[in-house]
Amino acid sequence: MEKSSSASSLGPGGLDISQAFFKPVSDASPPSTSKRNTKISVIGAGNVGMAIAQTILTQDLADELVLVDAKPDKLRGEMLDLQHAAAFLPRTKISASTDYSVTAESDLCIVTAGARQIAGESRLNLLQRNVALFQKIVPPLVQYSPETILLIVSNPVDVLTYVAWKLSGFPSNRVIGSGTNLDSSRFRFLIADHLDVNAQDVQAYIVGEHGDSSVALWSSISVGGVPILSFLQNQQITYEKETLESIHKEVIGGAYEVINLKGYTSWAIGYSVASLARSLLRDQRRIHPVSVLAKGFYGINGGELFLSLPAQLGRGGVLGITNVHLTDEESGRLRDSANTILQVQTQLGI
Amino acid sequence: MEKSSSASSLGPGGLDISQAFFKPVSDASPPSTSKRNTKISVIGAGNVGMAIAQTILTQDLADELVLVDAKPDKLRGEMLDLQHAAAFLPRTKISASTDYSVTAESDLCIVTAGARQIAGESRLNLLQRNVALFQKIVPPLVQYSPETILLIVSNPVDVLTYVAWKLSGFPSNRVIGSGTNLDSSRFRFLIADHLDVNAQDVQAYIVGEHGDSSVALWSSISVGGVPILSFLQNQQITYEKETLESIHKEVIGGAYEVINLKGYTSWAIGYSVASLARSLLRDQRRIHPVSVLAKGFYGINGGELFLSLPAQLGRGGVLGITNVHLTDEESGRLRDSANTILQVQTQLGI
Amino acid sequence: MEKSSSASSLGPGGLDISQAFFKPVSDASPPSTSKRNTKISVIGAGNVGMAIAQTILTQDLADELVLVDAKPDKLRGEMLDLQHAAAFLPRTKISASTDYSVTAESDLCIVTAGARQIAGESRLNLLQRNVALFQKIVPPLVQYSPETILLIVSNPVDVLTYVAWKLSGFPSNRVIGSGTNLDSSRFRFLIADHLDVNAQDVQAYIVGEHGDSSVALWSSISVGGVPILSFLQNQQITYEKETLESIHKEVIGGAYEVINLKGYTSWAIGYSVASLARSLLRDQRRIHPVSVLAKGFYGINGGELFLSLPAQLGRGGVLGITNVHLTDEESGRLRDSANTILQVQTQLGI
Amino acid sequence: MEKSSSASSLGPGGLDISQAFFKPVSDASPPSTSKRNTKISVIGAGNVGMAIAQTILTQDLADELVLVDAKPDKLRGEMLDLQHAAAFLPRTKISASTDYSVTAESDLCIVTAGARQIAGESRLNLLQRNVALFQKIVPPLVQYSPETILLIVSNPVDVLTYVAWKLSGFPSNRVIGSGTNLDSSRFRFLIADHLDVNAQDVQAYIVGEHGDSSVALWSSISVGGVPILSFLQNQQITYEKETLESIHKEVIGGAYEVINLKGYTSWAIGYSVASLARSLLRDQRRIHPVSVLAKGFYGINGGELFLSLPAQLGRGGVLGITNVHLTDEESGRLRDSANTILQVQTQLGI
Repeated sequence: MEKSSSASSLGPGGLDISQAFFKPVSDASPPSTSKRNTKISVIGAGNVGMAIAQTILTQDLADELVLVDAKPDKLRGEMLDLQHAAAFLPRTKISASTDYSVTAESDLCIVTAGARQIAGESRLNLLQRNVALFQKIVPPLVQYSPETILLIVSNPVDVLTYVAWKLSGFPSNRVIGSGTNLDSSRFRFLIADHLDVNAQDVQAYIVGEHGDSSVALWSSISVGGVPILSFLQNQQITYEKETLESIHKEVIGGAYEVINLKGYTSWAIGYSVASLARSLLRDQRRIHPVSVLAKGFYGINGGELFLSLPAQLGRGGVLGITNVHLTDEESGRLRDSANTILQVQTQLGI
Repeated sequence: MEKSSSASSLGPGGLDISQAFFKPVSDASPPSTSKRNTKISVIGAGNVGMAIAQTILTQDLADELVLVDAKPDKLRGEMLDLQHAAAFLPRTKISASTDYSVTAESDLCIVTAGARQIAGESRLNLLQRNVALFQKIVPPLVQYSPETILLIVSNPVDVLTYVAWKLSGFPSNRVIGSGTNLDSSRFRFLIADHLDVNAQDVQAYIVGEHGDSSVALWSSISVGGVPILSFLQNQQITYEKETLESIHKEVIGGAYEVINLKGYTSWAIGYSVASLARSLLRDQRRIHPVSVLAKGFYGINGGELFLSLPAQLGRGGVLGITNVHLTDEESGRLRDSANTILQVQTQLGI
Repeated sequence: MEKSSSASSLGPGGLDISQAFFKPVSDASPPSTSKRNTKISVIGAGNVGMAIAQTILTQDLADELVLVDAKPDKLRGEMLDLQHAAAFLPRTKISASTDYSVTAESDLCIVTAGARQIAGESRLNLLQRNVALFQKIVPPLVQYSPETILLIVSNPVDVLTYVAWKLSGFPSNRVIGSGTNLDSSRFRFLIADHLDVNAQDVQAYIVGEHGDSSVALWSSISVGGVPILSFLQNQQITYEKETLESIHKEVIGGAYEVINLKGYTSWAIGYSVASLARSLLRDQRRIHPVSVLAKGFYGINGGELFLSLPAQLGRGGVLGITNVHLTDEESGRLRDSANTILQVQTQLGI
Repeated sequence: MEKSSSASSLGPGGLDISQAFFKPVSDASPPSTSKRNTKISVIGAGNVGMAIAQTILTQDLADELVLVDAKPDKLRGEMLDLQHAAAFLPRTKISASTDYSVTAESDLCIVTAGARQIAGESRLNLLQRNVALFQKIVPPLVQYSPETILLIVSNPVDVLTYVAWKLSGFPSNRVIGSGTNLDSSRFRFLIADHLDVNAQDVQAYIVGEHGDSSVALWSSISVGGVPILSFLQNQQITYEKETLESIHKEVIGGAYEVINLKGYTSWAIGYSVASLARSLLRDQRRIHPVSVLAKGFYGINGGELFLSLPAQLGRGGVLGITNVHLTDEESGRLRDSANTILQVQTQLGI
């Protein structure tokens, strides 16, 4: 299904028109294979995968964009719908296939595929089915792109990033989960909306598990360079702990609320993952809260697990973890978050 | 539902934190109301409307983006999903409401709302229901934004653009249908794909009705400045009329194919309409094939109707229609296309 | 000299070709004058003015760009050099004139013109000549664009912004000096370079006078959300006050160094001013350290003067001043900076 | 002079702060060397070289940008002036050196360096000095980046591109001259200005020598898909050959006019070369009129020479030459242009 292996032919009778239209310069030679294009593969063409693919296309982050899904009709429909916009966009080679060979030599593989919960199914059972799905997805990705970076978006993202790491055999800097990058953007939006400032002037992180046990790092929030907690104290503005917690709860509830209202989330996760793709492939060395191998950080020593920490991302994947100072309460919560994840992994038997 | 009229408050007890955080300079005065932001309203938050809204947001075409839909839950879900990406994008004020007052003073109103076909319903009956829908949509848009440009995307786009023009009482340069702008991009993609060139180097127009009677202007296609028909003749490449027609048929079938495969079209129409919004609001004076009042052009004199012609678009809406030379066959087909539309209008009794 | 009032004419004999090429739709009406394009005027076509104009053009921030200078040849050369790139850029109307009427109804006027120091001339004498120059520049700008925002870049920027404010009669929120916005970028670059992070992840402000008495706000620097001073203390990294001061000195020396090496500064001030233009005209509400009327802030009560403070910028100009907490040492230095500026103003007799 | 090998150090006494600030994840491994960043080197930091470098930086076309020049002070000044803008731009690693080793593994090398004419010097003598200069520039570029693409901008561009090709030993698809890409943009601007359309809707090529013998391809000009010559004939608009020629003369005179007025050209050539860099490095497969090995095209058989023809550019350099149909007059002029260049080469003894 490589691109439009389509149909049309302007000159079927005689010469091939493409060869007639362009002639090579004399003494030409093919380009070196070491100078390849930037190639991104998105696994899973559902709402999340397609929002990611379309945002990557609009933001012109790749020279080649590949879609893989198990449903050939849906897949071809999505590919054609993107290709039809060619006249409105810089050129990007778009292809799609149910066969993983189309992903060969990808610089970045973004996994959004996931099993859907069956009515009455336990959370553990659902997770086991997702692990089984990853056993089909990760090995061929690794086979066709042994030097790629794996970016996992499927939920529960922390456990599945761990699973992808184990299945891939990759060094941990090349396996990343989208984690709380989006939760942190929601957090920054709520604070910015409250103060009527630009969210890009708000520094604020949610770390830990992408889910109910996530940890808001109140002590390091700043707005336009002003640390917000000490500002409130200096201004003698009375504020209550419950108020702060209600914002965090609104962040945690954000995904649920959108799902309840429109049935799924798509746009914000699309922008979030595109921002990670940019930092990775354009070597931006920006700091994002994403799911990384957390062993050894902030007293997390109970076992191998992934959860979100502020990480510097560049062409090599995870370049380092920021050494943020946490309050005792914050680091306690982070370790609780780690334990929540470890329990799931134990249940899974991995 | 204006933005997140949400909840959270950092300083409930004492001073308002926003006032404490920023203080005005002395001797300040409010900005003149004549210097307003660029504001775009999208009516209809379905797949098409949301692909348009999200592309406009990614391409940073508006300072304010408004969504209107009859379903409050879906509407709020889509608004939140866009707002949550605030940290990844330039600041755009995003709001949503079921009440048209939220659209006040829009520079551009994009109508994507449309009735859905009921099983067994005649095409005429569906259209009558859409006219009834437009009677509820257009008057409040005109009331709240008397100087706006109306851009109609709902299908059948040519007839509904005529209906919107009549309902609005606007001069015809401020009522435009998305028409064959997307069909032309599909056409350019197919030709570019065939020659392995960039679709932006292909000049090719589909005009007339957005639908089965659309007209491909073969005589004016050029690739990188090379007129393709005379090229083929000069190269003595044998080509058959059927081959050319098969590409046009693939364009006409493109939308149907995508709908059959994925259930609807979204991405390409999103990019197409965003490109029109850009030409209009940034006064680009680019030429797009869009649905305009066609009376008096190319021998179309049978009555008032809208169909797609190559039109120059800028801040004033339609600035002029390009005086393309058509072959006798092409202009004959165009008049047939016009008659097809007029017949529908007659059936409708408008 | 409005654009190319040039020469060429494809159809001199008969019909006007432009009228023949496009025909208006029937029933068209001209666009409302209240829906104008975004227009930026740059006063002074020297190295700084042209770097600003070219960056604004590349970043597509205006629909109309106007250059004004006293030297007609240089001016026309620069205008043509920008116009010749039309095929590589979105359409922007570019014009130039020695007559200020070309600036009419600008949304933003950026003043870069300044007298050049004559050998042996005192600093005060140079400043007096610049004030005389502003008496010729500011009144016509105000006359032709009574609702514009004035952005002053000419040096000494703080005193000349005060002069422009007085000459304009504008409310203080519509008169802004580029101030330490660039100094702060240099500061962020040096810190980012040291830590090998992205400068956009570094929050750091230089405030006060744009010059030798500028004040580095060490207490509010953070990198990826980590307050740097408390980080150093927590990590028990020994650091010395002199080390911090040496970075600030490198910032202060940065402009001098570039001038010594290449003869002038241009690129960085071009990007700095373009970033301010964006925040102002696209209503970004971002916080920038720029020169504003400082009376009443941080104990500056000795008189009316402009110096840089972290200000929120939007379509209305200065929306507010951030209430940053300064250490006693920092606020003392800021008041010293204010006194330095006031002394100059007193010498000037204004 | 690699970046700012500067000075400052936040933590001189104890631990290195950068190592303290970030910690690697466990089990990390360095990225594969085959996954390198996009790197562009610009040789010559004069007005042309710097306009190119700055436009590439603003348009975010490279992950690494390198400047090389023989004057270390000027070079360092320009590097610092670009670096100081770090906070306003996506991260790009900027470095500069008088030593070519800094260009190692560039994807694209852009040569703008050229000798300046000495009063009374013959054109031939100047060219001989430029050839001598290229003998110092090209071999080290080839040595450090054996797989790079060479893009020559120095004048006379056609002869010097031939010289670079000979010196490099590269296949001809990897040696390109900026040629008439800019002339064609000037041509498109003049036509667009005349018709008040967007220059991007004008297809028009100048080919042949970048200079007085360049050839305007009138027969293939189209505006919004309308071939302009047949349009004029169909509209029975009287036009005279002299009128068309006057536009071409205005194009040829464009560079001289700008040089007379401002002393040099910079902005338009900057945008022109950046557009070529984009098509090459992002594999855009767009068609540009650039200087290529012309042997065998349009009856040019007299010898090896470079001149501008419409060429498709992508990651492999020149992918092919468009087979435009020329009138007999046009192809005659093109061969005259070729002979002009060959004569110079013969005089040079190359």
